[in-house]
Amino acid sequence: MNPVEKHAGKLFILSGPSGAGKGTICKALLAETDLELSVSMTTRNPRAGETEGESYYFVSKEEFLRKIDASGFLEYAEVYGNFYGTPKQPVIDKLSAGTDVILEIDMQGALKVKENYPDGVFIFILPPSMSELRKRLTGRGTETAEAIEMRLGETLKELSYIDKYDYCVVNGQLEEAVARVKAIVTAEHSRVTFTAEELISRYKEEA
Amino acid sequence: MNPVEKHAGKLFILSGPSGAGKGTICKALLAETDLELSVSMTTRNPRAGETEGESYYFVSKEEFLRKIDASGFLEYAEVYGNFYGTPKQPVIDKLSAGTDVILEIDMQGALKVKENYPDGVFIFILPPSMSELRKRLTGRGTETAEAIEMRLGETLKELSYIDKYDYCVVNGQLEEAVARVKAIVTAEHSRVTFTAEELISRYKEEA
Repeated sequence: MNPVEKHAGKLFILSGPSGAGKGTICKALLAETDLELSVSMTTRNPRAGETEGESYYFVSKEEFLRKIDASGFLEYAEVYGNFYGTPKQPVIDKLSAGTDVILEIDMQGALKVKENYPDGVFIFILPPSMSELRKRLTGRGTETAEAIEMRLGETLKELSYIDKYDYCVVNGQLEEAVARVKAIVTAEHSRVTFTAEELISRYKEEA
Repeated sequence: MNPVEKHAGKLFILSGPSGAGKGTICKALLAETDLELSVSMTTRNPRAGETEGESYYFVSKEEFLRKIDASGFLEYAEVYGNFYGTPKQPVIDKLSAGTDVILEIDMQGALKVKENYPDGVFIFILPPSMSELRKRLTGRGTETAEAIEMRLGETLKELSYIDKYDYCVVNGQLEEAVARVKAIVTAEHSRVTFTAEELISRYKEEA
C-alpha cells in the first residue's frame, strides 16, 4: 500500500562497555516495540528456568563446531570452555519476514557481526560519565574498589571502538535513551534504500 | 555535561513534489520543535503583512546580485523577473549556535543546496499515492483536470530526484509524517560524528 514501506527488517546491534546499561535498554525495547531479540546458541548446559529457543539454543559442542565450519554464525566466542554464538539463519529468516531484530552484544562480538553483516545498524550505548559508571558498578556491590578502578580504565580504552559504530546513545535517563534508540529504528526505516526507477514503477503501478 | 551532546546544529532540507505536503509538515515541525526556519531573501516587493527578516529579507536587485557574486547563497533562482534565495550566513550562524535549521524547498533548489552544503540532511516528502495526489490537487480547485494530469506526469518524473536524498517520508497521515521527521532529527543527532580520541578525552576530563 505505502509505496516506500519497508520490505525487509533491519538488524540493530546494541553494544557498549559493561555498566552502560545496554541490557536494560534492550529489555525496554523488547517490551515496547516489535523488535525481536536474536537468540544465542551455546554449548553450556541449561540452567533452571531456561528454555530452549528462548533463553538459548542449547547444542552439543560437536554441533556448534560443525556450524562454525559451515559459516553459520554472525559471531561466536569461547568463554571458560563453553561456546556462545549468534546463529545466522534465524536472524536472516526474521529479517526476510520483515521483522526487525535486535542483538545485544559486547564490542568484540559486535565487530565480528559487522564483518559478517555490514548492513546492520550499530549503536554504541555510553554511560553518561565515568563518575556515574563508577557509582553504578559500586552499587552492584560485586567488586572491590580496586577492581572497579581497573575496570573503569578498561572502559576508557573500550571507547575507542566508537569508530566502528553508526550511532551512539548516552544512557543517562533510561526512558530518554530508549526513545532515542526507537527514533533511530524509525529513521533507519525512512532511509532511501531503493533506486529512482523502483520508486517510479511503484507509483506508476498504482496510478 | 553529556559527553556526546550536540555541539552544532544540523540543516534539514525538506523537499519533494508539489502537493506532497512538505509545507504543512514544515509548519507543524516549527510549531512542535526547536527547529528554526531558514528565511529567504528576495528582490520582490513586500506584500501586506509581510515582515522584514521573518517573511523574507527584502533587498534590491543590486544587493542580491552582489551577494551572488560573493557566493553568499546556498541556492537562488529567478522567478518571473524576481530573485529568491537562501542566504548562507544566517544559516551558518544558527548552526554554529547549536540551532537546527529547516529549509523547505523544491527539488531544483535542494540540489543546489546539496552542492553548497553537502552536510545537510536531505528528506524527500512523498505523496502516499498518485491517486491521493490527484485528489489533493483536484481538491484545491485551482487547476483544470487536464492541467492536473500533466502535473501528475511531471511528478512521476520528479521522483527520480530521490537518489540525491538521505531519507524519504510518505505523507499519508500528517501526524505520522511529522513524527517520522522528528525521529530523523533525533537519530541524526545520535550519529557518531567525533573520533574515538575526542570521545575518550571528554570522558577522561570528567573522570
